[in-house]
Amino acid sequence: MELGLLYSGGKDSTLAALLLEDFYDVTLLTAHFGVSDDWKHARETADAAGFDFERLECDPDVAREAADRIREDGFPRNGIQLVHTHALEQLADRSFDAIADGTRRDDRVPTVSRAQAQSLEDRHDVDYIAPLSGFGRSAVDALVEARLDVTVGPSEEIDRADYEAELRSIIAAEDGPEAIAECFPDHHQTYVTDVR
Amino acid sequence: MELGLLYSGGKDSTLAALLLEDFYDVTLLTAHFGVSDDWKHARETADAAGFDFERLECDPDVAREAADRIREDGFPRNGIQLVHTHALEQLADRSFDAIADGTRRDDRVPTVSRAQAQSLEDRHDVDYIAPLSGFGRSAVDALVEARLDVTVGPSEEIDRADYEAELRSIIAAEDGPEAIAECFPDHHQTYVTDVR
Repeated sequence: MELGLLYSGGKDSTLAALLLEDFYDVTLLTAHFGVSDDWKHARETADAAGFDFERLECDPDVAREAADRIREDGFPRNGIQLVHTHALEQLADRSFDAIADGTRRDDRVPTVSRAQAQSLEDRHDVDYIAPLSGFGRSAVDALVEARLDVTVGPSEEIDRADYEAELRSIIAAEDGPEAIAECFPDHHQTYVTDVR
Repeated sequence: MELGLLYSGGKDSTLAALLLEDFYDVTLLTAHFGVSDDWKHARETADAAGFDFERLECDPDVAREAADRIREDGFPRNGIQLVHTHALEQLADRSFDAIADGTRRDDRVPTVSRAQAQSLEDRHDVDYIAPLSGFGRSAVDALVEARLDVTVGPSEEIDRADYEAELRSIIAAEDGPEAIAECFPDHHQTYVTDVR
């Protein structure tokens, strides 16, 4: 069975890939809104982990709408949710038997409710799987420690390909680099360098 | 890391074991309320699948309380939830690093909410994992088809070790065998005979 996994190069979506690889032919796909080349960081991690990789072309208008939303809100949650929902729809339109993402039990954003999952499955005739949705933070941390080599650092210094990278680029282009710090709370992100 | 998985010999908990076996040292544990020897069916499936197996001693009073509840309700849902919650507490009291069960995204019973999961983890200093909670019915069916050999039949003819077996025994002893049909809707269950 062919499965397409929405992939950022971060620890959650990498763990999701490891959980599924014995059961599906897994392809990792990274959303690309045409703004920056950050998707290449995810390709490097996918190569290191030994997975097939594709770019998932997404609508630049959705990224601009999400960036506008983040600038209005002053925080990223709703904008991130918007691009995640769009990326899942794009992924569901491909010809995979199943699609998946790295959402976890304790994530605040992005989230996919049971009703949203069922709707995605019914409209696209595809299985949607969230392999980490039954894992809490402590269990995820233990698996990361056991299986992944990671680099941790402030978001602005870590090269990865989650949605933030392109949304940050849009916001910086519109309002200048200093606007990023206002919209994105200072947090640390991880970039997976290898899989054990 | 040592993980104890609440196990019935059915397809859901067997799939849960397969999903976790690359990441944890998995022991399968079947609840035993001292009523019948149905736990032995789960041991046979665990042996066929190549997993370590233990009996999980549970409180007979809880089984009787659950049976009473089912007789009063006329349907099994609340009684099954009661014994599942009790069995998880017993399992969390053991010395595993993580515990797990086979609850799925689309299950109506038993369920473990995010708040219940967090409470279990905090009180027992253990990770609780529901590896199938991100899989819908169609995805589970596809994995069963790919990986498990199963026997399907009416509940009363299938030898397995889910909670129903012991609760049925209690109800039959109290009210006679005909009472079982009144409380348990006619449904088909699966018993896993082998793992591919």
